[in-house]
Amino acid sequence: MSTLDITEVVVTPIAFPDPPLLNAAGVHQPWALRTVIEVHTGDGISGLGESYGDSGHLELLRATAKRLTGLDAFDVAGLRRLAGEVVGGVSDADAHGLTGASSVDKTVARVVSAFETALLDIQGRALGRPVYDLLGGLVRESVPFSAYLFYKWAAHPGAEPDAWGEAVDPEGIVAQARRMIDEYGFRSIKLKGGVFPPAEEIAAIRALREAFPEHPLRLDPNAAWKVATSIWVAAETEGLLEYLEDPAPGIDGMAAVAAAAPMPLATNMCVVGFADIAEAFAKRAVGVVLSDHHFWGGLRASAELAAICRVHGVGLSMHSNSHLGISLAAMTQLAAATPNLTYAVDTHIPWQSGNDVVAEPLSFQDGSIRVPRAPGLGVELDHDALGRMHENYRSCGIRDRDDETYMRGFDASFTNRKAYW
Amino acid sequence: MSTLDITEVVVTPIAFPDPPLLNAAGVHQPWALRTVIEVHTGDGISGLGESYGDSGHLELLRATAKRLTGLDAFDVAGLRRLAGEVVGGVSDADAHGLTGASSVDKTVARVVSAFETALLDIQGRALGRPVYDLLGGLVRESVPFSAYLFYKWAAHPGAEPDAWGEAVDPEGIVAQARRMIDEYGFRSIKLKGGVFPPAEEIAAIRALREAFPEHPLRLDPNAAWKVATSIWVAAETEGLLEYLEDPAPGIDGMAAVAAAAPMPLATNMCVVGFADIAEAFAKRAVGVVLSDHHFWGGLRASAELAAICRVHGVGLSMHSNSHLGISLAAMTQLAAATPNLTYAVDTHIPWQSGNDVVAEPLSFQDGSIRVPRAPGLGVELDHDALGRMHENYRSCGIRDRDDETYMRGFDASFTNRKAYW
Repeated sequence: MSTLDITEVVVTPIAFPDPPLLNAAGVHQPWALRTVIEVHTGDGISGLGESYGDSGHLELLRATAKRLTGLDAFDVAGLRRLAGEVVGGVSDADAHGLTGASSVDKTVARVVSAFETALLDIQGRALGRPVYDLLGGLVRESVPFSAYLFYKWAAHPGAEPDAWGEAVDPEGIVAQARRMIDEYGFRSIKLKGGVFPPAEEIAAIRALREAFPEHPLRLDPNAAWKVATSIWVAAETEGLLEYLEDPAPGIDGMAAVAAAAPMPLATNMCVVGFADIAEAFAKRAVGVVLSDHHFWGGLRASAELAAICRVHGVGLSMHSNSHLGISLAAMTQLAAATPNLTYAVDTHIPWQSGNDVVAEPLSFQDGSIRVPRAPGLGVELDHDALGRMHENYRSCGIRDRDDETYMRGFDASFTNRKAYW
Repeated sequence: MSTLDITEVVVTPIAFPDPPLLNAAGVHQPWALRTVIEVHTGDGISGLGESYGDSGHLELLRATAKRLTGLDAFDVAGLRRLAGEVVGGVSDADAHGLTGASSVDKTVARVVSAFETALLDIQGRALGRPVYDLLGGLVRESVPFSAYLFYKWAAHPGAEPDAWGEAVDPEGIVAQARRMIDEYGFRSIKLKGGVFPPAEEIAAIRALREAFPEHPLRLDPNAAWKVATSIWVAAETEGLLEYLEDPAPGIDGMAAVAAAAPMPLATNMCVVGFADIAEAFAKRAVGVVLSDHHFWGGLRASAELAAICRVHGVGLSMHSNSHLGISLAAMTQLAAATPNLTYAVDTHIPWQSGNDVVAEPLSFQDGSIRVPRAPGLGVELDHDALGRMHENYRSCGIRDRDDETYMRGFDASFTNRKAYW
């Protein structure tokens, strides 16, 4: 096992159908983009990574991939150094607009993460051990996930209705929750808000509470509200939410809401990199951080974030973007080794219509994934599916996620709802 | 490699000669105590740990060792759980009095650390990889250490003078530094203070600066001074010290000094566990934390501490107690993988007269240790030396480190110098 030198890195952009999910930035385009990373070593051991598919990021992934030949698969420090050189002090725009102002550190973290997951997969396979063993060992046998509800249209304009149907009011949201919980067994519910005036979203939360009296609930408007509105919503939903996620933009805005809100505030928008922590925690802006290895810099960096939250008495949950089975496996391994991850993890998997790039995706039982005991991440690439999804990418015409522009095609007056209400 | 189940754990208390090193708590006894841990697995792979040798701690190590049979060597989470059960909610006294009020968490951390190092050694050996590869990869080829100077008597009372001779004034300290630097090549100097009135120790620092104009200097009185004295010393040593270590006791005391001191304050006394961090950092009590895997809970916990310090802009150095080559190897592996460990590491190795329990101890070149590339920690146990040192332990009569009582045998009026001057 002395030579795990990287011999080849394959970077494949893919696209898969995505329903018209509504959010404060607009509506999901018909195709979601991701990038699949395959890292091969001289020992014949390979590892997998999954990351964003936006064009600027893809370009950085490709440039970094070229530099990795010859790197030892245990040399995550070397990966970080090379990614830093490739990024070269230029910050990539965050195409999704979710993680605040861009920075060089955040850009490097996004690039590192895509490959670090693959290196840990290789390390685990070389050892014959699951990745959780490289992160300190198993602390839970199964990882609970949450039902991630979205307001949505019945169909992308001009297309046939999808299987989920419309959800634009409390009844639609409750029906969606019912179906998702029947199918997956989730025991926590998150509603993506920031779509309708806050009173309507409060009504949806109340309807969910009535329909699911035992399920912890969360509401995430992606900073669509002003501070005063956020404080009002927090008061109206007292006793209903386990946390209120990113009601208002910015650390100062969140701190102002947090001082008045009866429940903890959670974030994946105002604390999105290590540089945000000292200020946000000092100002008590958030009670829960949603980690995400895709933008925090990988699984080890996410473990560091967990330790930091633990020390400061800040809760830890886990964020999701549209993703497939490699990311799901990485999230599961990380959660399996993170003692203070005490909230159910977000996932978009139910929205991906069974599409996946892994041969046997991890599956949900009673809303949880039983942590796999196979070496590495515990999933294998389905090369045929990868090929098909790459063809999708080639033909779909989408090169960057842009919910706002897509929405403006149907509503010319639409703008991102940041601090809108 | 699927079975690395622990089959046997051998816990061996040892003693080795220690010079009469003076400090705020008294004077080192003629024998220093440690415990050597050998963890054996069914695969024939074994790992090493080194920890404190005090009786209460030894008892906990022995009780924990009995519980480890059958545990997987990757299951550090399981080790932590078992150690917690053994400690059972009862906090062990900190026999050295250096790490503040005892707590259950600190007691568990000290126990976990002794075994975690051995488990990481096993993991690395099973992989054919140095431990640094399990901690994120190599970030430096060699680890710089500091010359750790002590005021000392020429000999333990009634014994022959040791090779180092007396050092009770600036001239003695400079001579000691000269000899230690000639022999080991250290490029940083730390003086253990808290022994003589502060003016005399300031004079020693000035003499060191004159003799070694390029060497960064540190002074560590182990909280022997009151706040006002500390502020005065800090002003007197402006421009002379890279940091002033634990001048006064407690987070509030340190914060008061830090607000006035021109140099960063460092600590291994007021921030000694994760529970101390939020308060100490919020109060800006320290600018540098001296990590120590022996009491922070192991190498992974120390990596977490490093991440926390990085995020808060707090510097990171590394503390040492009297130790031998297993600890030196563990400290070196940790330092090799810790990017923000930017200060030279403390070590007591020069005081151990070449005694060691490892066959080929890591050695200093130009004050640094070249990070070993051998699997695991990179050192092998010398079973003959272990046997001899265990005989020392059996015959020496010392069961707990107690510098204060030993000092009182020669000066009945002596008390620990905490906030004395």
